[in-house]
Amino acid sequence: MTRPLPPHFSESDLTSALNSLRDTLGAARVFTEESELAQYRDPFPVLEADHFSPSAVVLPHTVEEIQEVVRIATSSGLPLSPISTGKNLGFGGAAPRLPGAVIVDLRRMNRILEVSEKFGYALVEPGVTYFDLHQHLQQHGSRLMLDVPDLAWGSIVGNTLERGVGYTPYGDHLSIQCGMEVVLADGDVVRTGMGALPGSNTWQLFKYGYGPQFDPMFTQSNFGIVTKIGIWLMPRPAGYQAYMITLPREEDLGPFVDALRPLRLDGTISHVPTLRSLLLDAAAVAPRSAFHPGPGPIPDSVARRISEDLGIGRWNFYGALYGPDAVRAATWSVIRDALSGIPGAGFHFAGEHPSPVLATRAKIMAGLPNLETYDILQWHDNGGHIDFAPVSPATGEDAMRQYELARDRCLEAGKDYMGNFIVGRREMHHICMLMFDTASPEDRATTLELCRTLIKEAADLGYGEYRVHPALMDDIAATFSYHDGSLMRLSEKIKDALDPAGVLAPGKQGIWPRHLRGSGL
Amino acid sequence: MTRPLPPHFSESDLTSALNSLRDTLGAARVFTEESELAQYRDPFPVLEADHFSPSAVVLPHTVEEIQEVVRIATSSGLPLSPISTGKNLGFGGAAPRLPGAVIVDLRRMNRILEVSEKFGYALVEPGVTYFDLHQHLQQHGSRLMLDVPDLAWGSIVGNTLERGVGYTPYGDHLSIQCGMEVVLADGDVVRTGMGALPGSNTWQLFKYGYGPQFDPMFTQSNFGIVTKIGIWLMPRPAGYQAYMITLPREEDLGPFVDALRPLRLDGTISHVPTLRSLLLDAAAVAPRSAFHPGPGPIPDSVARRISEDLGIGRWNFYGALYGPDAVRAATWSVIRDALSGIPGAGFHFAGEHPSPVLATRAKIMAGLPNLETYDILQWHDNGGHIDFAPVSPATGEDAMRQYELARDRCLEAGKDYMGNFIVGRREMHHICMLMFDTASPEDRATTLELCRTLIKEAADLGYGEYRVHPALMDDIAATFSYHDGSLMRLSEKIKDALDPAGVLAPGKQGIWPRHLRGSGL
Repeated sequence: MTRPLPPHFSESDLTSALNSLRDTLGAARVFTEESELAQYRDPFPVLEADHFSPSAVVLPHTVEEIQEVVRIATSSGLPLSPISTGKNLGFGGAAPRLPGAVIVDLRRMNRILEVSEKFGYALVEPGVTYFDLHQHLQQHGSRLMLDVPDLAWGSIVGNTLERGVGYTPYGDHLSIQCGMEVVLADGDVVRTGMGALPGSNTWQLFKYGYGPQFDPMFTQSNFGIVTKIGIWLMPRPAGYQAYMITLPREEDLGPFVDALRPLRLDGTISHVPTLRSLLLDAAAVAPRSAFHPGPGPIPDSVARRISEDLGIGRWNFYGALYGPDAVRAATWSVIRDALSGIPGAGFHFAGEHPSPVLATRAKIMAGLPNLETYDILQWHDNGGHIDFAPVSPATGEDAMRQYELARDRCLEAGKDYMGNFIVGRREMHHICMLMFDTASPEDRATTLELCRTLIKEAADLGYGEYRVHPALMDDIAATFSYHDGSLMRLSEKIKDALDPAGVLAPGKQGIWPRHLRGSGL
Repeated sequence: MTRPLPPHFSESDLTSALNSLRDTLGAARVFTEESELAQYRDPFPVLEADHFSPSAVVLPHTVEEIQEVVRIATSSGLPLSPISTGKNLGFGGAAPRLPGAVIVDLRRMNRILEVSEKFGYALVEPGVTYFDLHQHLQQHGSRLMLDVPDLAWGSIVGNTLERGVGYTPYGDHLSIQCGMEVVLADGDVVRTGMGALPGSNTWQLFKYGYGPQFDPMFTQSNFGIVTKIGIWLMPRPAGYQAYMITLPREEDLGPFVDALRPLRLDGTISHVPTLRSLLLDAAAVAPRSAFHPGPGPIPDSVARRISEDLGIGRWNFYGALYGPDAVRAATWSVIRDALSGIPGAGFHFAGEHPSPVLATRAKIMAGLPNLETYDILQWHDNGGHIDFAPVSPATGEDAMRQYELARDRCLEAGKDYMGNFIVGRREMHHICMLMFDTASPEDRATTLELCRTLIKEAADLGYGEYRVHPALMDDIAATFSYHDGSLMRLSEKIKDALDPAGVLAPGKQGIWPRHLRGSGL
């Protein structure tokens, strides 16, 4: 494995900058050995395994140390790549977008600074995982519930900054973020919202503060290093019941989504449900080879047999009811009535069906952190994935169009369609998991090219993605091209103003500092 | 009345810049006559009536014309003050923060560009008022409901940009904003979120887009001129019932707020209710002189009589139930149980009590636009108000502390306390209306000084304001002083990057362009 240098850096430039960092943090918290750097590479590489490699890793323990780190970086031009805990599977893991950037690993900053039972919030540092906060709530007998993503080992700050989602009523993670502390490239420390008022008692209660609200500008961005965020926690409901609705045919997707939309829009379904394709759920049961030993995509005849054997649909919808018995019963009857127009649809409560996915979703929608969704990576040997993740209007027509586009391109690439619609109030995140054998250079290349094609064809149909692997960040940025790229010009103006040396996460989300624009890195 | 020149501008500089604007817009859309400018002054001045006066007003009709206007301003250094329709009563009306700035009045850009019944949204220009959109929905037999503020003559864009509030479940107006178009100071036109993708079909469906989300940065700010926003509209509920809860004693405020908080936090009360003081409600019935002919604050004995005569409390809480009969009945019983611990509390449905305020609130919480709340200005001759508007944690202790602070300072200033708690999920906007006789220089000075004192004393207790009159924008900005003013430094860096000539709304929310910083304007 090679250890890339930052652009325009010689070995001695790097050594000099790292020595300054060692002076600040101590030598034990500046890593440059291959064995240490290896854990920061993308676990699911689509380019060469060492393409997105750091030149070093530093581990600050405090905000003051981060201030020193960015000052050294700004004065020496050393590019940094801050991570919270560095999960982010399918989106590059801990790897920096810019080869040779120095990772600023914040995992040691893992304090739960405050939990308010009265108001329902927590204030956390970047190293705090969903497991950590959940455990803390349990240990303190909290009546609050934490919204968790599919894999709960990740950082709350990291997930929120990447605009990740969960599945309870608090599933839109940016919408439940309240208050932020950010270190800027010049070392300045900003508290947003009401946190800018000394002694403030509403930093985690009121988002907007006074004047421009900046928090969302620091998500999916490289304008600062976020060192604290507040998140809201939901009072645990009086009752809970997860359910699954199975749809027997591929083409049921369209009418189902059309029937679903009004239930999300009016809040009958008050949380973030998911609609998953057959093979994605099959992957939770067994490796691909157990269903189909041959190469190429799983044929329709086999898919039908899998559906029958597992007792699940070609599409499977996972939702939950929250609240007291009477409310849940009334809500369930409205949902059942509205969605029972699909011939052959099956309605199953958790606990009354053997599906392991239903059991997992029941935990996640109840805010119980786990890693069970990781099982789907057994699908391939050396299994990994990158995601094609377009946003879709919540209509049957759009869902079918996106499904058919993704399915057909997957089939042409010799891959299975493994998709998941995460259903918002008015739109859906369509997460197409492009699974591949990470040890196969051919499969890596095929997968990257497939994702690139999908991004382009989706953009031609008016669909954009919400998030992507570093290898394709520029591709997606290029699709947001209105007015000859005015949104990117805005990002670049702000980037240049806040980080004139261009040292924070260069290239993240396609935003490059001035000296690296157009460099094709 | 004087017509101030922009700072550093001579009459001939101004004439020259205005001539360029006339060349672009036509002479008929550039106003400089006193009769024309008068309507853009603050209707409730607290300084001299002509202090916050523009030097001219321009009326662009299109985005392209706005681009031309900002290019002329940037090249000539002419300060602009964009307004949507220029209501904003109590917060300066249409008046510019910088005396002599040229108002860019967007009222002629009043198209409702799209309403989606399917997804529940509208895309509107700055000149569209709440009345306009409501009428449009009615004419088209829409099943959607518009959240409206107290006075519905204002602009949807303007209200959202100032982070105004409404009272239905969609009452947090920034939270229901989705998609924005902004003209920057260099004439660039940015569409945020998914709107940056040409042919996008999710601009009004998904807020965040790809990369940094900028929309909230353009609220309460002077970083650009917003020319379009999307707002979400709520499906009209199956049923509706407004109610009032009267509290007989001043000190009931504390226990009531503590009982209320869990109901807001868990969503039992799903919308934005209000808790109003006696005299604020009395002002809707008759002028102050009808209750108390003398000078000085209304004595407690008189207040008690007013309470009895009007059959309302010292505090009056206005809420509503949304949904089908069974849901409303179940919810009402939970609310009643939780809030009936206050001895003597009265529970009244709209239609079963003569209070005109209850009738007005019933309309507003149903999304029916009106101007009835304007009646409270009858309290004084030449009645006006500015607002002291601190954010409070939703606790009884904080509510009482804020109330006592505001009440005592009002009494010392010879004024009545007329307050209103707008109850969010975790915090309350405490709107203290400082009513005054706009024709009395003494009363204006007293009122301004009272508000200034309140801002300072509140800040010492950890309370900050969410919004303020232009005369006090710098005062509040100064209270957000964490880390020696790092939030303002961030605002200034972005201001300088996006508007280097410093021509857009100089001084708004305390953000001054470089050449006017510290000028004490």
